[in-house]
Amino acid sequence: MNLILLYEHDFINGADTVVLDGRRHEHIRDVHRASVGDTLCVGVENGNVGQGKITRMEDTCIEMTVVLDTPAPPSLNLNLILALPRPKVVSRVIHSVTTLGVKNIWLINANRVEKSYWKSPRVSDNNLSKQITLGLEQAKDTILPTIIKKQLFKPFVEDELPDIIKGTTPIVAHPGSSSPCPREIHTPVTLAIGPEGGFIPYEVNKLVECGFIPIHFGERILRVETAVPALIGRIF
Amino acid sequence: MNLILLYEHDFINGADTVVLDGRRHEHIRDVHRASVGDTLCVGVENGNVGQGKITRMEDTCIEMTVVLDTPAPPSLNLNLILALPRPKVVSRVIHSVTTLGVKNIWLINANRVEKSYWKSPRVSDNNLSKQITLGLEQAKDTILPTIIKKQLFKPFVEDELPDIIKGTTPIVAHPGSSSPCPREIHTPVTLAIGPEGGFIPYEVNKLVECGFIPIHFGERILRVETAVPALIGRIF
Repeated sequence: MNLILLYEHDFINGADTVVLDGRRHEHIRDVHRASVGDTLCVGVENGNVGQGKITRMEDTCIEMTVVLDTPAPPSLNLNLILALPRPKVVSRVIHSVTTLGVKNIWLINANRVEKSYWKSPRVSDNNLSKQITLGLEQAKDTILPTIIKKQLFKPFVEDELPDIIKGTTPIVAHPGSSSPCPREIHTPVTLAIGPEGGFIPYEVNKLVECGFIPIHFGERILRVETAVPALIGRIF
Repeated sequence: MNLILLYEHDFINGADTVVLDGRRHEHIRDVHRASVGDTLCVGVENGNVGQGKITRMEDTCIEMTVVLDTPAPPSLNLNLILALPRPKVVSRVIHSVTTLGVKNIWLINANRVEKSYWKSPRVSDNNLSKQITLGLEQAKDTILPTIIKKQLFKPFVEDELPDIIKGTTPIVAHPGSSSPCPREIHTPVTLAIGPEGGFIPYEVNKLVECGFIPIHFGERILRVETAVPALIGRIF
């Protein structure tokens, strides 16, 4: 927790005092081992970041006076279209892309996504929100990404994707394709990444029909949790 | 297992027949669901990759005729110096950097590395070897990376690091430093990455004295498992 994420309902007595309990209180007490007078990095959900000075510590809560004078770090100009990864991986990937500053995420179905994945508790809104919070706290960010789940590949690609990619460079990571991953793109990007085993040819063709360019990241087949940060590191 | 990794002792009847049992046999049978006549991607440890054609399947083993005619994918020209991550993370990071083609890895101590980490079974040579095997199988590579553990920071940096960085661009990822991470470097690189919470100033100074340039990857604080692929994606 490099930043303590604050919510509107934490504020009391006007604009600059917050009272925190539960997880954040315990973390500040047990991990930061902070005491009255210490200052910590804080940020308000979808708002500024700044400093919080601890003014009171109780057994169950902590009070801080906060100054929120700095904008959140810049976001990535990226629409990320991810075939739903294995449940064990989805938490890590959402955490990871949140720390990298991705704000627009679609989790979509694909032929090689197992149907059972969609029913996993790890794919629940509740768990995804938790990973987003942890990611923002890690990266000292406050701007919530949105995650949209799409369980039907074809209608998503035909009816929604054309609008999503407008004004962006649409690329699909597809090992074995002829174009290398572009570098240091200064325009917005839409990046689609397939499931373990990749998109099937039908899916790649549908994406290409929609305007996507298949790109590769060398000969190596990477797991999604490695591929996503590596591609983002290269593209931006 | 995108590639079945073969070892010298698998070969029988000269150079082109292998017999596999155990994990590889079970994987070919249960995951690939392959049968006699099918061909699979194979590669021999520290050697070529190619195709294996299944000639016999028994309850406990499988026989293949192999043709090994293609060199392994290119490696990264990178020395990776990693402060030992949390045991839970170390497996994932070693797997991930193996898939990316890193061949020279040092796991080193640092002030913010908890002493207990070194005793974790996940940091044992046995587990690290296992992650390397899984990483090679994932990336269709055969060339084993070497991992060297250094539990004393100062003698490592003073006595060994000067030789390691010779002929390379030595950089240390250090959030808050003034230079951005370089892009598309065509020379060999030595990249040092600190523990959770970062290298302490003393450690950064020692690395700078040794010749390292502190670089950042934006304002965001990334976990090591995200930072490593993102940095590699950007640098190479």
